[in-house]
Amino acid sequence: MKLTKKDILGIKDLSVDEINLILDTAESFIEVSTREIKKVPTLRGKAVVNLFFEASTRTRTSFEIAGKRLSADTINISATTSSVVKGETLIDTARNLEAMNPDAIVIRHSAAGAPHMLARMVKQSIINAGDGAHEHPTQALLDMMTIREKKGKVSGLKVAIVGDIAHSRVARSNIYGLTKMGAHVIVAGPAMMIPRDVGRMGVTVHNSLEEAIKDVDIIMMLRIQLERQQQKIFPSLREYSNFFCLNRQNIKLAKEDVLVMHPGPINRGIEIAPDIADGPYSIILDQVTNGVAVRMALLYLLIGGQR
Amino acid sequence: MKLTKKDILGIKDLSVDEINLILDTAESFIEVSTREIKKVPTLRGKAVVNLFFEASTRTRTSFEIAGKRLSADTINISATTSSVVKGETLIDTARNLEAMNPDAIVIRHSAAGAPHMLARMVKQSIINAGDGAHEHPTQALLDMMTIREKKGKVSGLKVAIVGDIAHSRVARSNIYGLTKMGAHVIVAGPAMMIPRDVGRMGVTVHNSLEEAIKDVDIIMMLRIQLERQQQKIFPSLREYSNFFCLNRQNIKLAKEDVLVMHPGPINRGIEIAPDIADGPYSIILDQVTNGVAVRMALLYLLIGGQR
Amino acid sequence: MKLTKKDILGIKDLSVDEINLILDTAESFIEVSTREIKKVPTLRGKAVVNLFFEASTRTRTSFEIAGKRLSADTINISATTSSVVKGETLIDTARNLEAMNPDAIVIRHSAAGAPHMLARMVKQSIINAGDGAHEHPTQALLDMMTIREKKGKVSGLKVAIVGDIAHSRVARSNIYGLTKMGAHVIVAGPAMMIPRDVGRMGVTVHNSLEEAIKDVDIIMMLRIQLERQQQKIFPSLREYSNFFCLNRQNIKLAKEDVLVMHPGPINRGIEIAPDIADGPYSIILDQVTNGVAVRMALLYLLIGGQR
Repeated sequence: MKLTKKDILGIKDLSVDEINLILDTAESFIEVSTREIKKVPTLRGKAVVNLFFEASTRTRTSFEIAGKRLSADTINISATTSSVVKGETLIDTARNLEAMNPDAIVIRHSAAGAPHMLARMVKQSIINAGDGAHEHPTQALLDMMTIREKKGKVSGLKVAIVGDIAHSRVARSNIYGLTKMGAHVIVAGPAMMIPRDVGRMGVTVHNSLEEAIKDVDIIMMLRIQLERQQQKIFPSLREYSNFFCLNRQNIKLAKEDVLVMHPGPINRGIEIAPDIADGPYSIILDQVTNGVAVRMALLYLLIGGQR
Repeated sequence: MKLTKKDILGIKDLSVDEINLILDTAESFIEVSTREIKKVPTLRGKAVVNLFFEASTRTRTSFEIAGKRLSADTINISATTSSVVKGETLIDTARNLEAMNPDAIVIRHSAAGAPHMLARMVKQSIINAGDGAHEHPTQALLDMMTIREKKGKVSGLKVAIVGDIAHSRVARSNIYGLTKMGAHVIVAGPAMMIPRDVGRMGVTVHNSLEEAIKDVDIIMMLRIQLERQQQKIFPSLREYSNFFCLNRQNIKLAKEDVLVMHPGPINRGIEIAPDIADGPYSIILDQVTNGVAVRMALLYLLIGGQR
Repeated sequence: MKLTKKDILGIKDLSVDEINLILDTAESFIEVSTREIKKVPTLRGKAVVNLFFEASTRTRTSFEIAGKRLSADTINISATTSSVVKGETLIDTARNLEAMNPDAIVIRHSAAGAPHMLARMVKQSIINAGDGAHEHPTQALLDMMTIREKKGKVSGLKVAIVGDIAHSRVARSNIYGLTKMGAHVIVAGPAMMIPRDVGRMGVTVHNSLEEAIKDVDIIMMLRIQLERQQQKIFPSLREYSNFFCLNRQNIKLAKEDVLVMHPGPINRGIEIAPDIADGPYSIILDQVTNGVAVRMALLYLLIGGQR
């Protein structure tokens, strides 16, 4: 099977078969990152542009390492040092990049839909590395890959996602993906952080961490975005933490073999207790490792030519 | 024929033969960027430093892609993240880079003459990627390449350059180049944006867009530098736009097969109407594509060794 | 002989044999940087992350060039554009990088001990590129390499280090290294810039430049950190310069064949007169050249596998 899409814009657009193809391909790349020589010539002569309008270490670095392991050339453009400061529109930036003939453009942007606009406009493959509060498909893919790796399947599992569901692209992409793959998704967070229509996405809603994580196989904690605190979405960090921090007490409510995930960066002691983040339930660093493999898989499937 | 120069500092220093050699070489590289594997081993083991003291997406990216397509290693240094913040002089930065033995240094700097000082001081090949309001030779070369590609020649054409001529390194380099290559250059802009002695550069001067573009083959619109507006060089953007925006009405004054160029980034609706920028006359994106080829040609001719 | 260490954290931890191994290896790499094709395939498929929490042109560029000359992939992360702005701890940044499986991490950080913490935490090789006022081992190694190259030996030489000894990681690393290698080290600076216990490090202390450099073989001038002037460590630049600027008068007190070094960036006319920095005694640019070779040697010895 081949991926017939030009772009990866969101999990919403992917079929179950496509998700499985991506995860299978990613699994086959895991081995490359453990070799003495961590490099295959698959994408030699291809160029991948990382166009980041929001700061990010881990995602940009993960894509850069993924590209380089496949022998692609990688070109980083960050908004702060770019001609975007001269007031150029995203449209013109995109058309200009297109004219330079790279093979793929990875974009992170604060505006929902920015990657989709790019994808309609340019001939290159576009990968959404996070657009506003909309989608973050590579995160959801690496999350599903990690769940599948650790639990042997996704279907039938109970997965709780806890935090600011309403403003989280990680939550949204995972809800699309996990429900498609047959998991039962439960979301929880303070009332103001739960989107009104989330029930229509096929998830169960709770306003308490304790209820949400009861008997679940997976707990996915979301990062509280401290920079949003001024907007008074939640009363205080302390109060948030009192009710929604995953710790060694409340985790006992979940299944005995529960696994804990987090997209990072972690706020230790706010949404997750340090001993949970670093403890035996945590598969947070497996997520990071699998992130490189998933991104290798996407670059390979989109621009790797005939298999 | 070989390029015997060590550096490319400005179009003023180039002979007609040298310009033709560069354009011919660039043409031969166009094909590489359209291959499945967009890479040739020509500059393997060579290192190109992009030393940018002014923000720039397109020029830096264009040089970086050009270098990588030739298999050179590229190293980016931007002033904001460099030890220039520690107060090091350009001279010391240059001497230090020289001591690390790269093969070429591409420099953009707000001070006219900065690349020339570098060229005198270090043994490496220097390419001027824009120095103050002085020269921007790679832009003029890609412009001439694009004109030649579309019109079959440069000689004998009528080319109007419209905008802030006095403060534009793009205008200056193009005036040197186009007049050398036998084109008839007309410049236009508000009185305060026309250099007093521009007539001595062999161009015709007009203060009206309409007069300037009458019967021309090529219209080159310059970017109004919004960041300069505080300096009150022009009364208001609206007023500028009323008199000097190229639109579907006034473009009828030019030849029927007129072509429209712009160095970017574009201010849509200020110096150029959106339907002109994106319309059938526009060869703006061809300029961008040719930019990569011109920069590949320069790197190849300067540091590619014996042919 | 092989280097059995996982990391290079400081000169304090290195034996004389280890220092000699590194310098010998670096010498063998000098030749690579002078070739037509400045590249060897030694580290093909290896990835080196440059993790810089402080701005630096020369050190980051030197490591990047060193990595690329050995065919390693290099990934730059600077704190200002990284998720460190989201408040992630150094620990989590490190663990995340580790999970992406690079081979070495080069770190510069304003906190003394940051590289050591990293080294304990991750499996990758860590190279300290400067930690606070603590150590800057690659600088000391390139300094010793340069002295050995020019004088044929380090042992028995008299070396004066002049400036803000107390806050200089360059001074500290050189004191460890030079005394180990058998040199006699003299330090000098205003009283407030001399650490109280420096005598215990096996050096001679003077409060006058003139006394310090008398009959020495090497003078190493330190950079006055202008950004620290507000802290009133010294009364005024003019006063500092009056007493501690190396110039054509006072240099006559040193041996006739004295050599002058400086880690850069130079403050011309403050700690060193321009005609001394650029004059015949100066080996400042040899230091820069040797810096690339020393960094190639360290990358090779740490992650280059069996010889």
